[in-house]
Amino acid sequence: MKEKQAEVGITVKKSEDFSEWYQQVVLKSELADYSKVSGCMVYRPKSYEIWEKIQDFFNKKIKSLGVKNAYFPLLIPESLLNKEAEHVEGFAPEVAWVTHGGSSKLNEKLAVRPTSETIMYDSYSKWIKSHRDLPLRLNQWNNIVRWEFKDPMPFVRGREILWQEGHTAFATRKEAKEEVLQILDYYESVYHDLLAVPVLKGRKSEKEKFAGADFTTSVEVFLPMGKAAQAATSHLLGQNFAKAFDISFKDENEEKQYVWQNSWGLSMRAIGMMIIVHGDDKGLVIPPKATINKIVIVPIIFKKSKDEVFKKAKELKKELKKFNPIFDDREGYSAGWKFNEWELKGIPIRLELGPRDIENNQVVLVRRDTGKKKNVKLADLKQKINQMLEDIQNNLFENAKKFLDESIIEVKDFKQFKSVIKKEKIAFGQWCGEVECEDWIKDKSGGAKSLNIPFGQEKIKGKCVHCSKPAKFKAYFSKSY
Amino acid sequence: MKEKQAEVGITVKKSEDFSEWYQQVVLKSELADYSKVSGCMVYRPKSYEIWEKIQDFFNKKIKSLGVKNAYFPLLIPESLLNKEAEHVEGFAPEVAWVTHGGSSKLNEKLAVRPTSETIMYDSYSKWIKSHRDLPLRLNQWNNIVRWEFKDPMPFVRGREILWQEGHTAFATRKEAKEEVLQILDYYESVYHDLLAVPVLKGRKSEKEKFAGADFTTSVEVFLPMGKAAQAATSHLLGQNFAKAFDISFKDENEEKQYVWQNSWGLSMRAIGMMIIVHGDDKGLVIPPKATINKIVIVPIIFKKSKDEVFKKAKELKKELKKFNPIFDDREGYSAGWKFNEWELKGIPIRLELGPRDIENNQVVLVRRDTGKKKNVKLADLKQKINQMLEDIQNNLFENAKKFLDESIIEVKDFKQFKSVIKKEKIAFGQWCGEVECEDWIKDKSGGAKSLNIPFGQEKIKGKCVHCSKPAKFKAYFSKSY
Repeated sequence: MKEKQAEVGITVKKSEDFSEWYQQVVLKSELADYSKVSGCMVYRPKSYEIWEKIQDFFNKKIKSLGVKNAYFPLLIPESLLNKEAEHVEGFAPEVAWVTHGGSSKLNEKLAVRPTSETIMYDSYSKWIKSHRDLPLRLNQWNNIVRWEFKDPMPFVRGREILWQEGHTAFATRKEAKEEVLQILDYYESVYHDLLAVPVLKGRKSEKEKFAGADFTTSVEVFLPMGKAAQAATSHLLGQNFAKAFDISFKDENEEKQYVWQNSWGLSMRAIGMMIIVHGDDKGLVIPPKATINKIVIVPIIFKKSKDEVFKKAKELKKELKKFNPIFDDREGYSAGWKFNEWELKGIPIRLELGPRDIENNQVVLVRRDTGKKKNVKLADLKQKINQMLEDIQNNLFENAKKFLDESIIEVKDFKQFKSVIKKEKIAFGQWCGEVECEDWIKDKSGGAKSLNIPFGQEKIKGKCVHCSKPAKFKAYFSKSY
Repeated sequence: MKEKQAEVGITVKKSEDFSEWYQQVVLKSELADYSKVSGCMVYRPKSYEIWEKIQDFFNKKIKSLGVKNAYFPLLIPESLLNKEAEHVEGFAPEVAWVTHGGSSKLNEKLAVRPTSETIMYDSYSKWIKSHRDLPLRLNQWNNIVRWEFKDPMPFVRGREILWQEGHTAFATRKEAKEEVLQILDYYESVYHDLLAVPVLKGRKSEKEKFAGADFTTSVEVFLPMGKAAQAATSHLLGQNFAKAFDISFKDENEEKQYVWQNSWGLSMRAIGMMIIVHGDDKGLVIPPKATINKIVIVPIIFKKSKDEVFKKAKELKKELKKFNPIFDDREGYSAGWKFNEWELKGIPIRLELGPRDIENNQVVLVRRDTGKKKNVKLADLKQKINQMLEDIQNNLFENAKKFLDESIIEVKDFKQFKSVIKKEKIAFGQWCGEVECEDWIKDKSGGAKSLNIPFGQEKIKGKCVHCSKPAKFKAYFSKSY
């Protein structure tokens, strides 16, 4: 038994060896596994169910806006990919190329989509003729391939990515801009309300914006080991693609106009953020709203009591059906062993049930997030569980929010800036926003990048804390994934 | 206006030029469109919403069995694809190969998955160690690529296919077999209960079974132009893959056993079947259960009445919200033009509303399937719509079932057989089931193939109607897609 337990549990501390900790959590909790293809993961049911929750959550929101789901081809001819110059420059080095069908060489090589702008906009230019065809708002849930050579990290960075990509076209910049920000709010909501992960919301710098966009907005997550990660992006593409692909329409005066376009995407990286933000030395912690099985029932049995406890446990499983409880009825494992396994797997609430509990008409509920135990009378059980799940969801968010807030340090000069970056926190200070300045900062600070520039800032006076040119706004900087 | 109408409507009859009819229906109703990649289609919202309905319907069923969704990599190393001999033989000629990442040549070429047996079973062999790990029941909703050189046909045949593939492993053949048949019943239900398409259910012949399977079961659809199409398959793979991939477990006596495996798949072809079976000379006919917008409200307006009619139409749109009505409030199109467009797009019920209807507290409901009109009092409206939708769903199924039943002709000898095949119907007769005999039949009948062999047949006496060897069962034969 001892040996088995050692195999199952996490053997390192999150704060001491993050990268080993992350790998163990992902593999041992059965979220994902490595495959025979370097950089491509297998997403097991445990993580895919979270992805389905995200899909449902986000689909409801975008469908209410009038966005519709569709599907475009996986393979993109090289000539089409080359049609928008900045775009192809951004993606070409990472494209996986299909060159053969069976044993025949193809006339033109085909890119496995790194993103779908080009293949979609080729259709958009056919479909959009009149102002009556606008807005056109489509979204895809699909797989993309980017043949990166950096070390893969399950969910966070890899060669095949599951994501959604929304691509919309409007008659006016105003409508497009409104949508960009609306979608960004939805992304924030996926993180806040479903995954209990707080984000920083804002506009990306010129240097960090999407290749070919007018501007890019993002939500960013700051991780416990002192690095930020881009968590989702929403781009105002402007008219660059419209001009390259001739996506134009006759307006009400029969005059030709180019459309205004957006694109926006959220990937399985969201699950990685959730794991990293909430996980602890015992393993995974899943916010209740992101998981199907909100409870695990572990029977505490002694020789004679088994039948009675199992009978009651089965009753409870039925009664608590709406929480999809798992009843761990396996033989040959101690209760303690089971506790560890379900903690590793992040189930929000453990319900312990022994003969003494039955006598007292109660059960013991144990919170995964705090480890706190509570005796609960059967009569109050559903209501107490509902309350506890809500408390867990809120507590996870509040803790992460506190960490984020405490990580943001205002800086007045570059010396302070460097010291904040060195302490692995977020430096927030006045900035000119220029590409050369950001290059310089990265070089001089040991790799800090701008995360984003919060919206709704008051007019800025004074200088950039980095290069002393006039400042335009305050921006977040930190090290990044 | 006239010109526009000609552009929009279907210009050929289904019975006269099926292939042109099909293409026009698919393109003009905006179900799908061609892309820049030969053989790969764009699936527009109108068809993707049907796919989402199928996903929801089938997910509920398989999840209730304990099957879980997961995701495995798109790209499969050549060496892994080669691991099961019969399997690779079946797929290698149609594999799209990735040979380069960016500008670097890969060490080993990667197949864009034509199906996922090999990549999944590599993981299964790692995950399955003990009888406690069984059954393992996973399903994927994904895209596959088969680089066919036959003419593409939207939904029915193409190079990129959206489908689900279930892959399960059991300790015993008995459990596996039970699941194969259970899943086949679910496929039948997708067709019958959602798409209103009747199917023939049975076991495939030795010649037609899946490469590497013990046996294959299928549902088959017989199409109005006298050809059958395989509509979904459920395979008992037996232990071939288990042995090739070493998927084994220690049983309760600590002895090594190989697992028994199944795989089963349903693709977007189902949407093609629905279009072909129900469509008519006016265009698409979608069964009510397969569409979101069950009603279109078309206002019938005269100069003075517009405001009044629009106001009432908007009220009705709200009141009938559960049917997701479209309110066609476009200006500059006649009511007749709108009727044609929505008939082309297959909306089950048209609700006409004019000033006289408002006076009489009624609307006119028009059924897409029969074209019948009915005045309905506002007080009864919801109930009458519910009833009409049910009638349409049933009527579509009954009509198609009648056609199928009338197409099946019992044959006693090969002369009758040939005559039935020539008349483009289904020949049903006693058969030996042997591969050589099926080859001979195909050759001598101008291309007839066995569809499947119905389950639960009584013991057969007498001879094969084709080769005079002892018959084993009765089987369906026809020409096929």
